[in-house]
Amino acid sequence: MYDIAIIGAGPAGYSAAINARQRNKSVVVIGQNTGFLTRAPEITNYPGMPSVSGQQILDTMFNQAKEMGAEFRAGVVHQVLPMGESFAMALGSDFVEAKRLILCTGAKQPRLLPGESEWLGRGVSYCGTCDGMLYRGRRVGVIAQGPEAVSEANFLATLCSEVVYFGAQDDNLDSRIVVRSEKPEAIYGEKKADGLRAGGEEFPFDCVFIFREAAALSALLPGLEMDGAFIHVDRQMHTNIPGVYAAGDCTGLPLQVAKAVGEGCIAALSAASK
Amino acid sequence: MYDIAIIGAGPAGYSAAINARQRNKSVVVIGQNTGFLTRAPEITNYPGMPSVSGQQILDTMFNQAKEMGAEFRAGVVHQVLPMGESFAMALGSDFVEAKRLILCTGAKQPRLLPGESEWLGRGVSYCGTCDGMLYRGRRVGVIAQGPEAVSEANFLATLCSEVVYFGAQDDNLDSRIVVRSEKPEAIYGEKKADGLRAGGEEFPFDCVFIFREAAALSALLPGLEMDGAFIHVDRQMHTNIPGVYAAGDCTGLPLQVAKAVGEGCIAALSAASK
Repeated sequence: MYDIAIIGAGPAGYSAAINARQRNKSVVVIGQNTGFLTRAPEITNYPGMPSVSGQQILDTMFNQAKEMGAEFRAGVVHQVLPMGESFAMALGSDFVEAKRLILCTGAKQPRLLPGESEWLGRGVSYCGTCDGMLYRGRRVGVIAQGPEAVSEANFLATLCSEVVYFGAQDDNLDSRIVVRSEKPEAIYGEKKADGLRAGGEEFPFDCVFIFREAAALSALLPGLEMDGAFIHVDRQMHTNIPGVYAAGDCTGLPLQVAKAVGEGCIAALSAASK
Repeated sequence: MYDIAIIGAGPAGYSAAINARQRNKSVVVIGQNTGFLTRAPEITNYPGMPSVSGQQILDTMFNQAKEMGAEFRAGVVHQVLPMGESFAMALGSDFVEAKRLILCTGAKQPRLLPGESEWLGRGVSYCGTCDGMLYRGRRVGVIAQGPEAVSEANFLATLCSEVVYFGAQDDNLDSRIVVRSEKPEAIYGEKKADGLRAGGEEFPFDCVFIFREAAALSALLPGLEMDGAFIHVDRQMHTNIPGVYAAGDCTGLPLQVAKAVGEGCIAALSAASK
């Protein structure tokens, strides 16, 4: 059980980790940064680091958080389970539990497919490791939009009779997997998901597995209050859910490293003070 | 006329300057940092600068803002005059004018003496350069609590019949000045200020000049809405006065470099967007 779990490994998450460690709280940062910042060639307006690349900012802050004793876990959290005095979340085949949660999930919110929320848990899944066994010997589709898609699809190929992978060809994919380039459009079904519509065609499946680099916030933490596309917070970075804080791009404009770092600091001190 | 004037030369002010320059706005930063940060031997929780002194943080951010074209002015602004489309402020014998104003005045608010607000402009002044001539040949008191006290007192000594200086002895003081060590307690008067009570004694003066390192916000910008000791702001760092923004320690807890930098960034982008 950690004192604080931070979902998101960008400047907000690293700042939250640094400041929570400063208060001697145990901290885990979950995620890997694949966002815009990793591709920014030069950033001149982050105070204290004149003229560096986005990746240099990330590396420096990561090392600083690590030096101070923060722990790091790769992977995507798809759902947080409020447990009364703590929060639990599945991370691959593992579980992570923490007393407080800080959401630093960035600005990029996945757009859900029509039918996705409706059939989640009934023929739509975000976790091969968790739900693969339920579809042993069955025919499943994989929507590949995140770094874990290949390994999850390969795992499913060891269980399912057929795995159809909607995404880019990848040399690491199991040879039993069929790759399709049609663009996924919707999940269709009647009492449960019956398949995927992609490129105007219907592909019947017993389950559609969706692997993205981040979970939709509505699926991550149902009941989380939003302001449009952003998480609603007050100036102390509380969300509407007690024990849950948010910081960085996910809380709104401007999408700037300085703002993310400032909010990460505030969120950590708020989370550490209770 | 500047696009943006920033009052306060700490992390919030430097961050605001850096980010306003990034948006190609003309910027002046007014003030000199004499706060806690200059004496902090080691700061480990500012993301991106692991283990530096407070002075190193200030120097790095100052140089970055300067490189990007921000201008800097020493001195204390005692009062801002709203001019409709802009703000004017006296700085020594000079005037600075700007379209937008960002307050980064820090957490330390001077405590006013009893009678000070009441008699301001009627025997109490914050500016020797501005008001000295009004007391030519008269007897004045000086309350010395800021870096400009010596030079202002010396200027008054060239005009006034007597200058009594309440503050620490200083080799640079004009020899005509009388130094007293009594602690100033109150300004007393009937229709105007008649003198200063200090160390239990009454010292009659025609005017009492008060030189502090920062102006009280209530005197700086009358009508500015406060939350207790802090300036009231929304999440975009607007104060209640259109065109006036605030950032850093002056807006509330936590008093952290990261928070100040984040808010300075937001304030600058808000000010630059209108």
